[in-house]
Amino acid sequence: MKIAIAQQNYSIGDFGKNATKISKAIFEAKQKNADLIVFPEMCICGSFPFDLLQKEDFIETTMQVLQRIATESFGIAVLLGCPTYSEDENETKLYNSAIFIENGVLTRRFNKKNLSHLETKYFISDTEKNVFEWKNKKIAVCVGNDKPEKEDGISLAINIAAKSFKHKECQCNNIAKNSFPTIYVSQFGGNTEVLYEGHSSVYNADGEKIIELPYFEEGFEIYDTEKTYEPIKTSAPSEIQLLHDALVLGLKDYFEKNNFKTATLGLSGGIDSAVVLSLAAEAIGSENIRVLLLPSEFSTSHSITDAEGLAKNLGVQYDIVPIKSIYTESLSSLSPLFQNLPFSLAEENLQARIRGILLMAVSNKFGNILLNTSNKSEVAVGYGTLYGDTNGSISVLGDVYKTDVFNLARYINRDKEIIPINTILKPPSAELHPDQKDSDSLPDYDTLDKILYQYVECGKSENAIVEMGFSKETVAKTISLLKRCEYKRKQCCPAIRVSQKPFAETAIPLIAKF
Amino acid sequence: MKIAIAQQNYSIGDFGKNATKISKAIFEAKQKNADLIVFPEMCICGSFPFDLLQKEDFIETTMQVLQRIATESFGIAVLLGCPTYSEDENETKLYNSAIFIENGVLTRRFNKKNLSHLETKYFISDTEKNVFEWKNKKIAVCVGNDKPEKEDGISLAINIAAKSFKHKECQCNNIAKNSFPTIYVSQFGGNTEVLYEGHSSVYNADGEKIIELPYFEEGFEIYDTEKTYEPIKTSAPSEIQLLHDALVLGLKDYFEKNNFKTATLGLSGGIDSAVVLSLAAEAIGSENIRVLLLPSEFSTSHSITDAEGLAKNLGVQYDIVPIKSIYTESLSSLSPLFQNLPFSLAEENLQARIRGILLMAVSNKFGNILLNTSNKSEVAVGYGTLYGDTNGSISVLGDVYKTDVFNLARYINRDKEIIPINTILKPPSAELHPDQKDSDSLPDYDTLDKILYQYVECGKSENAIVEMGFSKETVAKTISLLKRCEYKRKQCCPAIRVSQKPFAETAIPLIAKF
Repeated sequence: MKIAIAQQNYSIGDFGKNATKISKAIFEAKQKNADLIVFPEMCICGSFPFDLLQKEDFIETTMQVLQRIATESFGIAVLLGCPTYSEDENETKLYNSAIFIENGVLTRRFNKKNLSHLETKYFISDTEKNVFEWKNKKIAVCVGNDKPEKEDGISLAINIAAKSFKHKECQCNNIAKNSFPTIYVSQFGGNTEVLYEGHSSVYNADGEKIIELPYFEEGFEIYDTEKTYEPIKTSAPSEIQLLHDALVLGLKDYFEKNNFKTATLGLSGGIDSAVVLSLAAEAIGSENIRVLLLPSEFSTSHSITDAEGLAKNLGVQYDIVPIKSIYTESLSSLSPLFQNLPFSLAEENLQARIRGILLMAVSNKFGNILLNTSNKSEVAVGYGTLYGDTNGSISVLGDVYKTDVFNLARYINRDKEIIPINTILKPPSAELHPDQKDSDSLPDYDTLDKILYQYVECGKSENAIVEMGFSKETVAKTISLLKRCEYKRKQCCPAIRVSQKPFAETAIPLIAKF
Repeated sequence: MKIAIAQQNYSIGDFGKNATKISKAIFEAKQKNADLIVFPEMCICGSFPFDLLQKEDFIETTMQVLQRIATESFGIAVLLGCPTYSEDENETKLYNSAIFIENGVLTRRFNKKNLSHLETKYFISDTEKNVFEWKNKKIAVCVGNDKPEKEDGISLAINIAAKSFKHKECQCNNIAKNSFPTIYVSQFGGNTEVLYEGHSSVYNADGEKIIELPYFEEGFEIYDTEKTYEPIKTSAPSEIQLLHDALVLGLKDYFEKNNFKTATLGLSGGIDSAVVLSLAAEAIGSENIRVLLLPSEFSTSHSITDAEGLAKNLGVQYDIVPIKSIYTESLSSLSPLFQNLPFSLAEENLQARIRGILLMAVSNKFGNILLNTSNKSEVAVGYGTLYGDTNGSISVLGDVYKTDVFNLARYINRDKEIIPINTILKPPSAELHPDQKDSDSLPDYDTLDKILYQYVECGKSENAIVEMGFSKETVAKTISLLKRCEYKRKQCCPAIRVSQKPFAETAIPLIAKF
């Protein structure tokens, strides 16, 4: 039996575009004499549609497209994913389903059992066994994180999924050592925050990988159940390459799927904006980006030269707009209120916010989408100005710790110096008062990131982290900062999700004495 | 049997304070010879604690406080709500429980069955019957929206809850016509967005209300099961009074529970900021508020006089900081980029954002919390500047449609003119370009709000709303605006929730062609 695997990138609610992709792959599979073609979870409507699943016309359109795809499926069987209504006549409930089509007829439906908490808002889970006989084979079908049934005589399992990319997590969570060949098919692509990795694969009955599709790219492969395959021995891409490729795809799809063309951002000479610009140049092209250099009286000279160096290396248009005169004018307007009170956080934030309004003015005037440049370490401890540093349509590094921002910078420079080396080597600084360094206010990033990772990603308690060897004071300070600035995170723009625990999935009450 | 009802206001994670309130009420109930005292759902830890429920020490502290309360319960029975661990030794799972304490011993536990989607992230639901015999009575106990068991011989039902206030919704959703007396006990109070209404009550076996505690206030009543009560005939507070009282309590508790003292906001002379200031003056006192008047070259003269009039009526300190010089300086700095391009949205937004940074500068300098003044109609269709109008720590009207903002203004003026009548009568305007009116860009608010209510609150489709008699074009435009500005709502500050469908509970994908 020849089974085609279609690894594709879909857009939420763009039924015409998604259906065209599906049709093309069906056509190709027929030409290659495949018996069956498998598409990912939620391929017809795109993923994840959130509350659109509660709109009747969204599901109705999905059903219409499903029927149209069925009519193109003569001479081949198709397995694909989409939401479907349950049979319960009293209540409108949805399943997250895999549909099996034979010769133009929808013959079978298999529904997801293990739903994530997000999915339980929209779907009910099923308890039916997902095994069927076809062409003398007993086949198990499962959706997402479901495992194949434990049943005698199964000769093949097919898993359709929309697998989120998770940096630093075991990449093969759902790869069970089954005693039969198993086909994993996942969609890939960015949908604002949500990023699917692709990387569809086939494992043999010994649990060895025999077919592998790429990460973050379109793919089409045929698996022949009658053939014997050699296990794949090539090494996987490095962690940092995957993270890099994930962020580039996330940005590229954000622009493409939204029909956005051009971007802007503030280039400070620091490492965060340098990495964001480099990634954006890869994603949408240097010619589509216009950056602003927004020096203040506290900016050091290397801030300008480092930022200019990067812009020139990438061939990106840049303008220098000093903020001093607006800053001075603002303080002058406020002087009847501020009188002779000493320089404080108010003046620091004012500078960051003036940068924010200039960037938004350029964004509004020329239609350039503002890219946010905050990283996860800063977002975690609130080291950034609300309505200033937090501005943007999409955050590129909001789910990437500072230490990984450094790793990304080195990866970007792997072949030649794109990001000026001084940007990577100099100590991080917000440059909002004379000689300011991040390390004046925060633990060094190496320590900070390790503590944050244990607390945020691994859910460890304060005591447990101290027992791992970190200073009690540093751990307490970090966790206290993290809790105190939840109000800032509540107003941040969406960040491309690349970790096991993006902040968008946490919920800390704003008022809590605990 | 004498049953005391304790209607109280708790703070999330403030175990000491919550326990003290509970102890005091137990003491009072004992003095009044009550057999049993009933406290609301989640009274020990406060509600809703979100991810704190996933912290072991949060649950452990709850258990310690529960034991301490038990030791104070000699000579009386206590029924109260808190999270508890399930018995499953393999997995740590929580119930949302009601605990029955007799003479210092925890004798029974009743767990919530019908969990909201939010709760299913933290709790599992129970299927056990929640009926027990005590002092020759068969008593049904239920939590939240659970209904009493259908079982013969029940002589009393007790419901403990944390009931969210919902403007314009039937106030008695959970009031079933039981064939036995039923006691409803709810906590009240604001917890950032979440607002509980109190309004505990007792119904007799004929479904008539016989005891009623106030909305939004502390209350303590004794219900004697052996006594016959006359049904209550007094009329309920008006819808608009309840909405007003809800918002005042929400603001008051936001400040008290956060230990915040003072507030600021931008007073434009328009109705939204006028209503927010009036509510804030009631909640935290005029003397704790300092407002800014931030006129631009497009502000009309009545904007200043109306704003000044209100500030004087309330006795609130105000400063006038014209934004023209900062605006001019900003445009001058941007002129190498903007050149001679015509005035556009960029310049309109720039003015709103300059106001935003001045308000935040005052907030940062003096520690005044910035109150957001956007209303739900604007938030729905994106009629407001991101990082300008959307700034603030808490949104007072973000869940209140514009037509209800007018109703609130008239209610605030019920006894005397607090809000200048011109503010209520003049056509709403953002005053960001000459002679601008909201009605240039939007349908009139009466129509807009009705369409929004049908779409957002009632979940009606575009076609269904058109069939109700609204113009096809207006409905299509409204819904298209609503979908298009989800990106702004994602960055709004938390709003006090007073409707059946606050935007914080909706999730529309940012990229969707549907």
